[in-house]
Amino acid sequence: MFESANLRHRVDKALYKREAAKLRQALLDAQYGLKENGRFPVLILIAGVEGAGKSETVNLLNEWMDPRHIHTSAFFDPSDEERERPSLWRFWRELPAKGRIGIFFGAWHTMPILDRVMGEISEGEFAREIGEIQRFERMLSDEGVLLLKYWFHLSRSQQRKRIKELAADPKTRWRVTDQDWQYLKLYKKFVKVCDPFLRKTSTGEAPWIVVPGADPRHRTLTVARHLLAAMRERLDEKPLKRLPDKTPPMPAPTDHLNVLRALELDQPMSKARYAKELEKWQGRLNVASRDARFKSLSAVAVFEGNDAAGKGGAIRRVTSALDARCYANVSVAAPSEEERAQPYLWRFWRHLPRNGRFTFFDRSWYGRVLVERVEGFCGEADWMRAYTEINDFEGAMLRHGTVVVKFWLSVSKAEQFRRFKARQKVSFKRFKITDEDWRNRKKWDAYETAVCDMVDRTSTSLAPWTLVEANNKYHARIKVLKTFCRAIEDALGRVSKAGVRKGGKKKK
Amino acid sequence: MFESANLRHRVDKALYKREAAKLRQALLDAQYGLKENGRFPVLILIAGVEGAGKSETVNLLNEWMDPRHIHTSAFFDPSDEERERPSLWRFWRELPAKGRIGIFFGAWHTMPILDRVMGEISEGEFAREIGEIQRFERMLSDEGVLLLKYWFHLSRSQQRKRIKELAADPKTRWRVTDQDWQYLKLYKKFVKVCDPFLRKTSTGEAPWIVVPGADPRHRTLTVARHLLAAMRERLDEKPLKRLPDKTPPMPAPTDHLNVLRALELDQPMSKARYAKELEKWQGRLNVASRDARFKSLSAVAVFEGNDAAGKGGAIRRVTSALDARCYANVSVAAPSEEERAQPYLWRFWRHLPRNGRFTFFDRSWYGRVLVERVEGFCGEADWMRAYTEINDFEGAMLRHGTVVVKFWLSVSKAEQFRRFKARQKVSFKRFKITDEDWRNRKKWDAYETAVCDMVDRTSTSLAPWTLVEANNKYHARIKVLKTFCRAIEDALGRVSKAGVRKGGKKKK
Repeated sequence: MFESANLRHRVDKALYKREAAKLRQALLDAQYGLKENGRFPVLILIAGVEGAGKSETVNLLNEWMDPRHIHTSAFFDPSDEERERPSLWRFWRELPAKGRIGIFFGAWHTMPILDRVMGEISEGEFAREIGEIQRFERMLSDEGVLLLKYWFHLSRSQQRKRIKELAADPKTRWRVTDQDWQYLKLYKKFVKVCDPFLRKTSTGEAPWIVVPGADPRHRTLTVARHLLAAMRERLDEKPLKRLPDKTPPMPAPTDHLNVLRALELDQPMSKARYAKELEKWQGRLNVASRDARFKSLSAVAVFEGNDAAGKGGAIRRVTSALDARCYANVSVAAPSEEERAQPYLWRFWRHLPRNGRFTFFDRSWYGRVLVERVEGFCGEADWMRAYTEINDFEGAMLRHGTVVVKFWLSVSKAEQFRRFKARQKVSFKRFKITDEDWRNRKKWDAYETAVCDMVDRTSTSLAPWTLVEANNKYHARIKVLKTFCRAIEDALGRVSKAGVRKGGKKKK
Repeated sequence: MFESANLRHRVDKALYKREAAKLRQALLDAQYGLKENGRFPVLILIAGVEGAGKSETVNLLNEWMDPRHIHTSAFFDPSDEERERPSLWRFWRELPAKGRIGIFFGAWHTMPILDRVMGEISEGEFAREIGEIQRFERMLSDEGVLLLKYWFHLSRSQQRKRIKELAADPKTRWRVTDQDWQYLKLYKKFVKVCDPFLRKTSTGEAPWIVVPGADPRHRTLTVARHLLAAMRERLDEKPLKRLPDKTPPMPAPTDHLNVLRALELDQPMSKARYAKELEKWQGRLNVASRDARFKSLSAVAVFEGNDAAGKGGAIRRVTSALDARCYANVSVAAPSEEERAQPYLWRFWRHLPRNGRFTFFDRSWYGRVLVERVEGFCGEADWMRAYTEINDFEGAMLRHGTVVVKFWLSVSKAEQFRRFKARQKVSFKRFKITDEDWRNRKKWDAYETAVCDMVDRTSTSLAPWTLVEANNKYHARIKVLKTFCRAIEDALGRVSKAGVRKGGKKKK
């Protein structure tokens, strides 16, 4: 990976001057083009060894282009708000919106590489992290982000020379830390880890560009030229209405059996029994939610279901067992303007709870493979890839220690009809029934197929779907409450009293 | 303030049952009405003594209404991201959007009251905090927020009884902390501080409602009835297009002299001299920005000026002296949908820097008293009150330790004409000139008046306006750079080596 970069690249002053003037103007032009076009963001990752000119390059890009439309994010130590959420959260919250340029100084690759060099994680864990990065970057590309990854390289002797120079000059001495000397000693180890890392995370849509760092002029031109070419290429592209559909069709069920039809939707539960069970499980949930061990966990519950299946009512039976200070409800409707300028999952990432808290989603990211699929709001390629993206998203939560519980509330077509009619009659429920509900009802079969595919493709051992027979509201609410309560209790059981999750990565 | 609340209020079970059922339905109806109406948010503050039923009430409101459209925020210890910003920042970030209900469990009154009871702040400091709260709440009301403030009260004997009951029951024992016993001992002190506090912060637009906390049924009906009445009143109000204008007219200048005309816009500076000065001041700024003492400070710079006065160029001469990892640029254009659903200043609060960082605003909150005033985008009453709101906003930053620097870049009408023409010719500058610029130019005099009023009303000793003669770009950039650099250096000088700001409140 570093063979070409180890050569002694040089650019003379005259050539640099000529080229730089041209590049500068062209980059500014491209930046304004991006702003006008507004269809995609540019995300520039700046990575590589110390002393190879990373900060000089970031400063230069800010100088050459209009810094008002660039946002540079440096990822130092995470804040407590960041530490209490899945590790990717801090990157999601800084993603540039469409039409803008984001520069990430250090990103999701930094910690895995350091952890591997320092022996904090095994080869297997490192491989898992690489897989996660590949899928995350793939998702960004699929969502239209122009992802450009620059790796600044120095040979070992170049790095030693550079650090010595910095340390000798009183103006730059402050930049050299003990860590730099330590990392220099580990140079070979770094190469051994980084070389395969770069190859594995160099993909067709987002390859690493290795930048030889020793000669400032050569380095600058390398980055500027590539950045310009990449932006121009995307800007000059004719916008496709939709990606060409290369997805093989999903199999239609060959008989009439599916996971929804297999449910016995009418489950008995008397009002008296309901009252008793409600008290019991709300009490247990209340106790579990106050357990000291929950302070190192968090919980996310997803409520999906047919219109009028009783999602809202079920959520309220859960939340009324909790202290209102520690939960948030997110009711998912059309995305806002700021949300539309970001990758699809952004609007869910922003609501993830801190440790010790609960978030309840009334409808969720599964809209992608339900309503968006059925109504054709996104292309087949988009909702097909969403299954993987969703599994990764939930995987990130689970690894962080978030309990993920997912409910599908199922009512029969006849029961739904009865509820629609009833809602139209009651004044304070009239807001709950709209023309859209009646329209959705006409697409019952298409939704059924979508739900079955969703359950098959996103039920994982740690975050399975719970299908709730909901013709009887009492039964549905108790099943939801019981399932949720047990999930929390199980998670508490996995936390040792010392507060360290069993099997999880040790906290540093 | 507590006279009526100290009486033995009671509601019997039968009455409660009847009333509760009606209230519940009416509240839900009002909540959906609010959502449909979408013109204002409801912000409910829950405050008062321990054991008076605050959390029970919050949970009940979440149960009675649709919790999907309520966001409850409890303000425990601030996170590090919150501590590194002005103290109101954590409340701004949680404000409910129009059409939604926010419940704040504890809010901006908590710390001042506690600090005063514990003797951490003087009577004078307490009075200053009260003034700040009055103006903040006034601003919220003026921005359309329906602010409802409930103070839950118990007499001393009621509180002792309640805490003992809680401590005796194994189910609620966890809720009683050592602090509760300590606060009980301080009961009289609390009353002595709270009583005048409540009176002083009870204003016509947002009075405190004291809720007797001893009888749960009485307490619940008190809050629910008031909340319903307040929401209904606002919902049933006919929307005014604009507030009736009760503002006396601003005085027109009686001669032709004003602060802008008094400037000598053509200031000499040669290119050679510019290059020398630029190097000098960028160097000094770079050194200052890396000073260890800056880690306990932050800086915000505001750039306003005539169109084509060179704001962008001036900002770039400042930022290129800084490490791109520690500054952010905010270019202010039309507000986004999420921003429009919030009070005017919300979109600026969200960008305030953490400690050790810089934020540069290219146009700013002063748009309210410039473009919005001149173009009539807001009513006279709105931009008139904005001067106070802006002074409070900047005061909050200054008290936190943020350096606030404000520039008005001034060019002559003739120089602006030359620049507009030049911009139209250069390809990569063509984005910088729009029809709007030509339209604004026609309102030159109106803008001039607005700028002079702005300078008069918002130049404070710690955050003065710097008027920059900008016909010569070299002179303008150096003046900006020099002023900014000196402001940072001065602020560093005020930080003692121990990292404690002189004269500021001691950090706990």
